[in-house]
Amino acid sequence: MIKRSGDLFIIGGNEDKEGDLEVLSIFVEDAISSGGKIGILTTATGYPEEIGSEYRDIFLKLGASKVDLLHINTREKADEESFTNQVHGLSALFMTGGDQNRLSSIIGGTAFFKEVQKAWQNGMIIAGTSAGAAIMSRHMIVSGKTKLKHDKIHVEIGVGFGFLEDVVIDQHFSQRARFGRLLHAIAHNPQVIGVGIDENTAIWVKDGGKYFEVIGEHSVTVIDGCKLSFVDIADEAESDEVTITGVQLHSIAKGYQFDLENRKLIKKEKGSAQ
Amino acid sequence: MIKRSGDLFIIGGNEDKEGDLEVLSIFVEDAISSGGKIGILTTATGYPEEIGSEYRDIFLKLGASKVDLLHINTREKADEESFTNQVHGLSALFMTGGDQNRLSSIIGGTAFFKEVQKAWQNGMIIAGTSAGAAIMSRHMIVSGKTKLKHDKIHVEIGVGFGFLEDVVIDQHFSQRARFGRLLHAIAHNPQVIGVGIDENTAIWVKDGGKYFEVIGEHSVTVIDGCKLSFVDIADEAESDEVTITGVQLHSIAKGYQFDLENRKLIKKEKGSAQ
Repeated sequence: MIKRSGDLFIIGGNEDKEGDLEVLSIFVEDAISSGGKIGILTTATGYPEEIGSEYRDIFLKLGASKVDLLHINTREKADEESFTNQVHGLSALFMTGGDQNRLSSIIGGTAFFKEVQKAWQNGMIIAGTSAGAAIMSRHMIVSGKTKLKHDKIHVEIGVGFGFLEDVVIDQHFSQRARFGRLLHAIAHNPQVIGVGIDENTAIWVKDGGKYFEVIGEHSVTVIDGCKLSFVDIADEAESDEVTITGVQLHSIAKGYQFDLENRKLIKKEKGSAQ
Repeated sequence: MIKRSGDLFIIGGNEDKEGDLEVLSIFVEDAISSGGKIGILTTATGYPEEIGSEYRDIFLKLGASKVDLLHINTREKADEESFTNQVHGLSALFMTGGDQNRLSSIIGGTAFFKEVQKAWQNGMIIAGTSAGAAIMSRHMIVSGKTKLKHDKIHVEIGVGFGFLEDVVIDQHFSQRARFGRLLHAIAHNPQVIGVGIDENTAIWVKDGGKYFEVIGEHSVTVIDGCKLSFVDIADEAESDEVTITGVQLHSIAKGYQFDLENRKLIKKEKGSAQ
């Protein structure tokens, strides 16, 4: 039997916590199907107690059998056995929002990270919202400016946790007008695909990263630069405008699946071809 | 000799009026090369005197030989000979910003419009900014909601002046986060291409509409749905999210040209292919 790494739930932030809880309940259901014990990693947030407790209450309400809070806020703690031991037996790890730089600088490369990686390779589900979503891919956007508030677009790319290869995630996508900054990231790194996830929306990555399904309220925008025929990145001081042609774009709503290996939409039965 | 219709300057709004006036000076230069007499149509704005005078002063400063203000605010005026006569001898007509619905409802189909159309077919340049840009194409976005401020995207399409066929213009594009709404417009009307123009940026349409060149500070986003392989527009009340795949996307900065007939970037000499 081939072992596959666990599913990923990559949530665009601001997921519903009071209404039908669509996104979180699908995650918890998946966690229950493989045991039901969920760990909450609060490293990204400056309010670990409040945020952690809020998610714990929700997960328990949705039927999780046990929920552990993992308040790791230093690299020293991330190397402590008390925390690495807590990873054993988890069905799923959920990473809260906050600042993805805290996740990478506090967790990256530690004993805790290695334990999480191993558990994930053995099937543990990993979920993350907002900063916890950004950190999922090998390359992540650590900071960026959009034209909504700034005169120029500026994007900085950092090293994420690598649960997804050849993908860069952006969250709060439509709600924070991040199309331009994700396009810039792809212009600079055309081998990866950009996945922009709206708020209260998620991609559910299945089958060891082969494909994802969109769940939640809004949609997911995929920017694929692999076939782009031309790029001119004006790196002069006066301008950072990009000329880029032949980008493939997909917008994907709830219920549709996207094949990450072949970079194409998987049509569902009820869809109408055109 | 084949007569070609006049150039178009389609400006994404908020063009510089105090600094180097890049966009407006290229327009005035083009107008001077065919005579230098410019008419300003203030129909779109609720402040025709102020806005009109501001542009008149700028155009005169930039070297226009004569500038006429055309304050047409009713359909009756748009049928008056005094106004239709003023179109004769104009090198260029400039349409201010404001509300594109005012332009279509007051000017559309009137004697003035027919005169403008005829003059344009004989080579008169037509420029417009913001609402004056939106009105240029056959199909125009008359109103729309983005996910930045609203929960759902909603786009209404109306009839524009038709100086460009098979194109729908959106302005203030990056600055007002209009990527999603233009994509929605294309999902509903895949035969047209969407052209999203940033502020202080313009497309200069030349050679009777065969191609455009980008001028100004930012960039122009082209969304081409002609090769899209699949569309699912969820028109149910609960959601108006769109699933669409195979959209071609181009982002074009200053100095580059785009072939409107073949829908592809025209590379310039200094560009580096990749």
